[in-house]
Amino acid sequence: MVRRTHIRAMADNELFRLLNAAQHHLDEGFSDLPPAPAPPLDEQAAAILKEAATRLHDNYPYAHPLYAGQMLKPPHPIARAAYALAMSVNPNNHALDGGRASSAMEIEAVAALAKMFHWPHHLGHLSSGGTFANLEALWVAGQLAPGKSVAASDQAHYTHSRISSVLGLPFVSIPTDNNGRMDLAALERLLETGSIGTVVVTLGTTAIGSVDPLDQIAQLQQRYKFRIHVDAAYGGYFTLASNLSPVARAAYDAIAHADSIVVDPHKHGLQPYGCGAILFRDPAVGHFYKHDSPYTYFSSKELHLGEISLECSRAGASAVALWATQRLLPYTPGGAFAQGLESGRAAALELNQRLSLSTYFVTPSAPPQLDIVFWAVRAKTPEISSTSAQHIFDEAARLDLHLALANLPTRFFPAGTWPDSEQTKTVTCLRSVLMKPEHLAWLDQIWSRVESAAEAVFLSIPPRNQPQ
Amino acid sequence: MVRRTHIRAMADNELFRLLNAAQHHLDEGFSDLPPAPAPPLDEQAAAILKEAATRLHDNYPYAHPLYAGQMLKPPHPIARAAYALAMSVNPNNHALDGGRASSAMEIEAVAALAKMFHWPHHLGHLSSGGTFANLEALWVAGQLAPGKSVAASDQAHYTHSRISSVLGLPFVSIPTDNNGRMDLAALERLLETGSIGTVVVTLGTTAIGSVDPLDQIAQLQQRYKFRIHVDAAYGGYFTLASNLSPVARAAYDAIAHADSIVVDPHKHGLQPYGCGAILFRDPAVGHFYKHDSPYTYFSSKELHLGEISLECSRAGASAVALWATQRLLPYTPGGAFAQGLESGRAAALELNQRLSLSTYFVTPSAPPQLDIVFWAVRAKTPEISSTSAQHIFDEAARLDLHLALANLPTRFFPAGTWPDSEQTKTVTCLRSVLMKPEHLAWLDQIWSRVESAAEAVFLSIPPRNQPQ
Repeated sequence: MVRRTHIRAMADNELFRLLNAAQHHLDEGFSDLPPAPAPPLDEQAAAILKEAATRLHDNYPYAHPLYAGQMLKPPHPIARAAYALAMSVNPNNHALDGGRASSAMEIEAVAALAKMFHWPHHLGHLSSGGTFANLEALWVAGQLAPGKSVAASDQAHYTHSRISSVLGLPFVSIPTDNNGRMDLAALERLLETGSIGTVVVTLGTTAIGSVDPLDQIAQLQQRYKFRIHVDAAYGGYFTLASNLSPVARAAYDAIAHADSIVVDPHKHGLQPYGCGAILFRDPAVGHFYKHDSPYTYFSSKELHLGEISLECSRAGASAVALWATQRLLPYTPGGAFAQGLESGRAAALELNQRLSLSTYFVTPSAPPQLDIVFWAVRAKTPEISSTSAQHIFDEAARLDLHLALANLPTRFFPAGTWPDSEQTKTVTCLRSVLMKPEHLAWLDQIWSRVESAAEAVFLSIPPRNQPQ
Repeated sequence: MVRRTHIRAMADNELFRLLNAAQHHLDEGFSDLPPAPAPPLDEQAAAILKEAATRLHDNYPYAHPLYAGQMLKPPHPIARAAYALAMSVNPNNHALDGGRASSAMEIEAVAALAKMFHWPHHLGHLSSGGTFANLEALWVAGQLAPGKSVAASDQAHYTHSRISSVLGLPFVSIPTDNNGRMDLAALERLLETGSIGTVVVTLGTTAIGSVDPLDQIAQLQQRYKFRIHVDAAYGGYFTLASNLSPVARAAYDAIAHADSIVVDPHKHGLQPYGCGAILFRDPAVGHFYKHDSPYTYFSSKELHLGEISLECSRAGASAVALWATQRLLPYTPGGAFAQGLESGRAAALELNQRLSLSTYFVTPSAPPQLDIVFWAVRAKTPEISSTSAQHIFDEAARLDLHLALANLPTRFFPAGTWPDSEQTKTVTCLRSVLMKPEHLAWLDQIWSRVESAAEAVFLSIPPRNQPQ
């Protein structure tokens, strides 16, 4: 146990050493000003920080590969160091006056995202998260087609329905097929009515990672006039992965047809929370953002990011962290960053394969589309299956494996799984988001715990402690 | 110069030492898991961090007391350390599953804000910033009075007009008096029409820090039915200051009448960017936020902050930083935190006093209401005054004093300042936000540079280099 802590601490020592060196370098840039030391941190501050550390023990170990539950992972150390460094300046990317350097880094970082999607031109900025990014996308869409509806699949994030309501836009939910992908026939019937202004296409739903058929939806644009907003908050970066299924690949390859894209660097981009992004294909939508402010942005010949964002004050540190991470791990197909995504996806396929061979579990009709796996417990009814899933979830946690639970339609599973179940029923499934590059290397450890937890529940065998 | 860098670096060394100690303590809580070291930071990472530090030199020295321009200041070192610590866990305060400890700390931190406003009950949460907080306030207001207008003063932040438009709510601008405070007669005429659903009362406008007469607006509620939203994003913390004018004090003392309050800890609360807050007096408005999600929040007997927020993923680190800062510097009248605010306000009064005695400048009709000072350059016309303000701004910057510029109505100045000027005209003023506690101690240094810059412009005397 002592050894284990030691390993982690060594990495942290290195982080703080580099941070200290970078801080010295940063301070040198302002060394011709009269001295003005920051308030010192005293014994009381040390005690409060220690108390904060103690309180943070009350968390699941999100950073550890045995945490394989919700979509949570720690930022890359370089992102954390760059964020911590930039906090000493505390730039505000609203205006150049408040963050000249970090605004330039934001523009570069957002351009790298646009380039990843093969967009030669764009207008965009970082946001505090996916919600605000999606809100801006739907707001612009609503301005361009006032009164028309927003349509998204029944597996799309709930924020689209709620944000549409916040914006006063009618919202329509489109059914999904048995793989959780938007039903094209249902979409076309809706488009025929002429009431749809915007279709939200989700590339990677947050529940199961399903990928809407963007390529086929884009073809519908030849017959019907509508705007395509791609919500790739979770799945956007998978466009770099070489091991997608041909169907998912086709969807990603059609991304040039999107009118707007949301992607969250704080999900798969190795960033701390507070880093979403919105991209528009047509820079002209910038005029919707226009406003007047009495403070003179005195460096106003250049673009202030506040002029193309609904958010006012925004953390420049977030841009510095993303910029530094992109420098270390560029968005190159086949590069280290892309390999990290491919690794998570390979882990998902492998886990699904093992689950499908197990007598305890039922896997859905389709294999994972990205890196999210879900499965049900074999049982006579969805109700018993749901209860068992909860038990296995609890047993796994006792073995330090942290999974998640999700209520999903029974129709996602092969016909006959629960013969008497109605089509509209849901079942509580076990769910695992294998989003850490390390998950693949840890798959045997993960799998042995899944099996042990299932054995404990099915055979009333107490779970083995700490399987290796 | 070497000595100066050294002083700052010592404070940073202490910060990183405490951070390292707290990190060890945090890691110990997870030491019974199999070892899984984080990716190491190598030479390339060190070079990238150094490059980021170099690029960050292209900023005004926001952290230094001679930066007295826009509302920018660095977070307190304990906030920065706590934020950096929490980033290793990277909690997501959307759901307890994603940040149990940091959610609890957020609830405590928001309760401390409510207590500061003397609210015994509240519903509220942190937000990524003031814009989203104000959006939620106006969204709830709109739900309660659909179709009715939002009214705010012509000095209120531009976000209210734009957000109202985003929400599809009619917006009305109310004129201000010559001190930049909402005109009560004009407000009452509007209320008589019965069309106003919500009045946005700004306690501390971002341009000049003017404080709307909330006490008198609250009295109007006895005759007219409307909702009061207090935008105290900038000025909220001044309720703790003992040196407000009686008029401003009366406004703050009426804050219990507000239906909602926005305050930004990232402005006066010593936090890094990404920390706003929204408080509602009536917890029942929580039902507007209701949504369904397929992921089971398995610890769902308790409140998940995502259930009372429009934002989904949110940085738990932001809550940890605010909580730690509140522990070190509680919101106690007369305490060290309150004294910091009082110090900035005293600096503003002193600067205004010196300006009023100077032959180079004209001060507005009313002294500063909070800690923001603005003044015009004495000249025959607003146009010449504006040009001179820009010149003095540039000269001051050459002397390391960084001020701001603002276009403000000429009516804020005594009648006859520009005899031939129309009432509707604006003039470019010099502006200084004295929001750092250290500004008072540095006032002589600030003032000597203001005088030198003015002399240089008026007398064509080259500015003295580095006045002491």
